[in-house]
Amino acid sequence: MPLVRISLRSGTSPEHRRAIADGVHRALVDVANVPRDDRFQTVQEIAPGDLHFDPAYLGQQRSDAVVFVQITLNQGRSVETKRALYARIAANLEAAAGLRKDDVLVSLVEVPRENWSFGGGVMSYPPPETS
Amino acid sequence: MPLVRISLRSGTSPEHRRAIADGVHRALVDVANVPRDDRFQTVQEIAPGDLHFDPAYLGQQRSDAVVFVQITLNQGRSVETKRALYARIAANLEAAAGLRKDDVLVSLVEVPRENWSFGGGVMSYPPPETS
Amino acid sequence: MPLVRISLRSGTSPEHRRAIADGVHRALVDVANVPRDDRFQTVQEIAPGDLHFDPAYLGQQRSDAVVFVQITLNQGRSVETKRALYARIAANLEAAAGLRKDDVLVSLVEVPRENWSFGGGVMSYPPPETS
Repeated sequence: MPLVRISLRSGTSPEHRRAIADGVHRALVDVANVPRDDRFQTVQEIAPGDLHFDPAYLGQQRSDAVVFVQITLNQGRSVETKRALYARIAANLEAAAGLRKDDVLVSLVEVPRENWSFGGGVMSYPPPETS
Repeated sequence: MPLVRISLRSGTSPEHRRAIADGVHRALVDVANVPRDDRFQTVQEIAPGDLHFDPAYLGQQRSDAVVFVQITLNQGRSVETKRALYARIAANLEAAAGLRKDDVLVSLVEVPRENWSFGGGVMSYPPPETS
Repeated sequence: MPLVRISLRSGTSPEHRRAIADGVHRALVDVANVPRDDRFQTVQEIAPGDLHFDPAYLGQQRSDAVVFVQITLNQGRSVETKRALYARIAANLEAAAGLRKDDVLVSLVEVPRENWSFGGGVMSYPPPETS
């Protein structure tokens, strides 16, 4: 159910982008209760002049290696789960893709369960009262 | 008012992508009460290695032809309307673009009406109490 | 905290795209209480055949220069602030990028404060009760 959009500066290797996508998914599985086979992601390279970020906002130290991770997912996860998810994504991307944690940005967009169709033209998670 | 983002694997024809965009819009008009001239869409090709999907999640059978359709739209549509929309989008993309229904994913992101400006620097749908 | 995604037809100059990104950010700072160093944006060029828009919906007159601006930001801004933001973005893009105001579309997606990590693996804006 998460739909993940990863944006980063162009010029990286396919292996680097793959390691990032893998690391984000593994974090969702390990700390946010996402099934292992519930994986839907796009990775997009952005031309250097078209990727804008502040290098120091909130005290982080960001570099050109910065990665934006926007995750659309079902609402209902606790603050503590979200906190653990941010920590795990950054740790995974540091370990598997060589990123500095300060270069990992995460944005969550939450939606109700009824807002997904994962194929077949059907509502994937119908609410109890209507299924 | 819907803003539609369609993502699919690179290497398709302009006609194929056009048929998909047309089919999504027609479904919104026919089952979700969207005006015919309320059409705003982007289609983006994603390099094969940068488009990740599980081929079998929830029992569907997905292929490299998979299409992600993310629709930002006003909140307030019923579960039944959403259900009809998923069915119609998949049916349209099967009929007009030759896609298998299992390859059509839809994600809805709902926003309040005041969250749009469709040009002119004005709020397009002001709430009654403030217009 | 805003994450801004700007989409426009391919074939523009880097200077044009930069002026648009700058103008959107300046509007957020000047009317929506966004810190000057809270800037995270991507700009993406879309092939002409893959960018669909109605030229006249709601009475605007749109051209191929149309720009879609989607802003993910914290919830809680008033209708009046949103109204001022639309006006300012359009005015800035007219003044700085030579766009007609009718060619400037804005879509806001609001999220709770806890939905961001701007780096370091930490929740950037923890709610008071959990920080």
